[in-house]
Amino acid sequence: MAIKPTIPKGTRDFSSEEIFKRNYIKNILVSSFEIFGYEPVETPSFEKTETLMGQYGDEGDRLIFKIINSGEKVKKADLNSFEKEDYEKFSRSISEKALRYDLTVPFARYVSQNQNKITFPFKRYQIQPVWRADRPQHGRFQEFFQCDADIIGNRSLWQEIEMILLYDEVFSRLNLKGVKIRINHRKILSNICSLLEISDRFNEFTAVFDKIDKIGIDGAIKEFEIKKFPQKAINKINSLFKFSGTTIEKLKFIEKIFKDYKSDKSGLDEISFVLKYLDKTQLIASTVDFDFSLARGLNYYTGMIIEVSPPPAIKIGSIGGGGRYDNLTSKFGLKNISGIGISFGFERIYHVIESLKLFPEKIKKNTEVLFLNFGNDIINNIHNEINKLRKNNISCELYPSNDKLKKQLSYANKKAIKYVVIIGPEEFKEKKCIIKNMISGEQLSFPLKELYLKLKEMLKV
Amino acid sequence: MAIKPTIPKGTRDFSSEEIFKRNYIKNILVSSFEIFGYEPVETPSFEKTETLMGQYGDEGDRLIFKIINSGEKVKKADLNSFEKEDYEKFSRSISEKALRYDLTVPFARYVSQNQNKITFPFKRYQIQPVWRADRPQHGRFQEFFQCDADIIGNRSLWQEIEMILLYDEVFSRLNLKGVKIRINHRKILSNICSLLEISDRFNEFTAVFDKIDKIGIDGAIKEFEIKKFPQKAINKINSLFKFSGTTIEKLKFIEKIFKDYKSDKSGLDEISFVLKYLDKTQLIASTVDFDFSLARGLNYYTGMIIEVSPPPAIKIGSIGGGGRYDNLTSKFGLKNISGIGISFGFERIYHVIESLKLFPEKIKKNTEVLFLNFGNDIINNIHNEINKLRKNNISCELYPSNDKLKKQLSYANKKAIKYVVIIGPEEFKEKKCIIKNMISGEQLSFPLKELYLKLKEMLKV
Repeated sequence: MAIKPTIPKGTRDFSSEEIFKRNYIKNILVSSFEIFGYEPVETPSFEKTETLMGQYGDEGDRLIFKIINSGEKVKKADLNSFEKEDYEKFSRSISEKALRYDLTVPFARYVSQNQNKITFPFKRYQIQPVWRADRPQHGRFQEFFQCDADIIGNRSLWQEIEMILLYDEVFSRLNLKGVKIRINHRKILSNICSLLEISDRFNEFTAVFDKIDKIGIDGAIKEFEIKKFPQKAINKINSLFKFSGTTIEKLKFIEKIFKDYKSDKSGLDEISFVLKYLDKTQLIASTVDFDFSLARGLNYYTGMIIEVSPPPAIKIGSIGGGGRYDNLTSKFGLKNISGIGISFGFERIYHVIESLKLFPEKIKKNTEVLFLNFGNDIINNIHNEINKLRKNNISCELYPSNDKLKKQLSYANKKAIKYVVIIGPEEFKEKKCIIKNMISGEQLSFPLKELYLKLKEMLKV
Repeated sequence: MAIKPTIPKGTRDFSSEEIFKRNYIKNILVSSFEIFGYEPVETPSFEKTETLMGQYGDEGDRLIFKIINSGEKVKKADLNSFEKEDYEKFSRSISEKALRYDLTVPFARYVSQNQNKITFPFKRYQIQPVWRADRPQHGRFQEFFQCDADIIGNRSLWQEIEMILLYDEVFSRLNLKGVKIRINHRKILSNICSLLEISDRFNEFTAVFDKIDKIGIDGAIKEFEIKKFPQKAINKINSLFKFSGTTIEKLKFIEKIFKDYKSDKSGLDEISFVLKYLDKTQLIASTVDFDFSLARGLNYYTGMIIEVSPPPAIKIGSIGGGGRYDNLTSKFGLKNISGIGISFGFERIYHVIESLKLFPEKIKKNTEVLFLNFGNDIINNIHNEINKLRKNNISCELYPSNDKLKKQLSYANKKAIKYVVIIGPEEFKEKKCIIKNMISGEQLSFPLKELYLKLKEMLKV
């Protein structure tokens, strides 16, 4: 019985055209990373389950794909948990390996494991697929690419600045103008929490603010009410975060508040340093704003945080983000090492470039030349011409069998092959050949021995 | 408590140097494939379990990594099988997805699924990782790359010929000379079995012959005795397969036998056609031999089979193989479609190129220029020079903090950065800069505004 050929929900096959488009973006990322002095690292598709579990919160843990132990090793299945309907614990009892959920934890593991071999500050980039058991829906996949650039082992604010320059470099090489980069600092958020006397609820506070793009400040207020935040704090949040103005106005606004309340202003100073440099630097594809409502969902950030949105015409959420973290490697025993990292949302960037028609027109490499097939006798004698073209980097194919001319030409058309070489019995007898331009329909006849030079001229190799 | 940073056995992290080396090989494969008119396809890392299971034999099934169903879906666990210690069945009851085991089955699934969109004959290449739960040992990994090129939808023997030319193209671009390509035909083997009156044991016969490189003909004879093949057949095997000679002598030897026994000689004719063309064609990196003891382990082959060995100095088994198949897609409901495919053993080819020191000397892209850091005041004023170099594709880094000069220079040395730009307080005051060549130690001083042009000249950008 035949099996229906389908793929799991949330996964994709990629055709050649999609691969060329994806490589176009990937190559721009790679060359930008390398221009900035990052070097590539790759990690295995699966890590030990213990490396990944507990790093992404309960919800994250549930979304990690676990691999069943092979052979006899499933014997260890915790049937007790199964009966108690603790399926999470049951699954973990028969799984020692799990698929990479992001690139950050494997990177932290890599740095800790190779700390004696690595030159710090260590600048690495990584472009690899990750897997999440998210419910598949439009534009959300179970397998997708992540692209990260991190610098670990130094606290200099020039790294914050260069991360923003790197974003601008990538988007300008992609010809994607109008990108909006917002920055904030976790210390500014924690100072605000402290002023509001809700420091103990900092993670809840940032989790609500992480959704503010979708729910707005009014939606956030409602959530704080549901979560029973003190009414006094909620009122202050309302007045604070309804403030709008330019980056400079917002900086002054926060500065005054911190001054009034004698708050630590180191976070604000760092943001000011970054903004001051950027103010006198010409960014090409993007603008940078200070946004003290920016929170980022991940709790490991400790310094500046960044989020990148596409031009306003495209409604798709963020296409990148990142920030400074101080304790990412401490789980693996490597303590007191600060780093900063940013991510490029590969799949979303692809969507934006596609929507705005920013892919170069000729992105797919088609076969350049097709040799028609008039039977083995002729091919046996002229196949060396094909070899010669290939040795000279002209891509060509021999139509494999002596089918009707119409069928052979239709193959050339479907594959968008521009030049067809015709050496039929007559041409062969006269040591001639014909090149047919499949776009113009034009045909040129000349001695076979001139074939390579003629094609070279036509293709401008 | 800290988690020990390690990776699962049989997996690997790749450092930047390894990635550049792997990309070197990958780029040669890609450009060769494209010169021959193949287009890329990529498939998801996991397929539906039913797509993969039963395609690789019992041993293969056991080596497929299965992914545990998420959340509630593990409820379906077949505890009955667990109690009966049928762990294979138990595992399958909680797994709907499995990691790609090779590229062939996903390709057959892809062709069947997209048959209405594809132009046949369809030439595709695919370079992606595959995963196998093999016991990890030296040189054998649980995650490794496969590279396949297939043509599906046509029976022309020119495809057999071009597969061999493709091997030669790749190995000559890799500068790997002395590669040995052996070919045979499944019909020749099945005719021999028929002459020996052991047709019903064809798969056992090929399985033994598949190991002949390791065990020799005497080892094979022993295995046939253990497997209780008829003594008459064993005696004939012994005399047949001890024949040695040139390709032409072997062709004549088989031809005579087939003639004496009035066997179908279509397989032999196909091999002769291929060899006749190759005989008058200059191969650069390889030689081609007819070897009627070549069997290939996989049962889906129906026509010519190929196996590629590295130069004799490297003892590592085959570095490639393939053959023609007729029924690969029939499991997915697409019948009567012939194809031919070859594989490049990526990890082994890497090993060979490494062992023979054939990687180009300058393969790793290092940062070209490092700007030393003499504090924020200076950097604030000269950072635009860094931006300018990057815009002109010169890779450069700013040393992030104002550390001691020795530490900064040591960073340049460790990262093999050739040029260091020094703009200390004095240079800054005089609007000058110094370029230090870290290899020769030479230092050049000149006006800051000439920096880009000087570096461009030095780097020959």
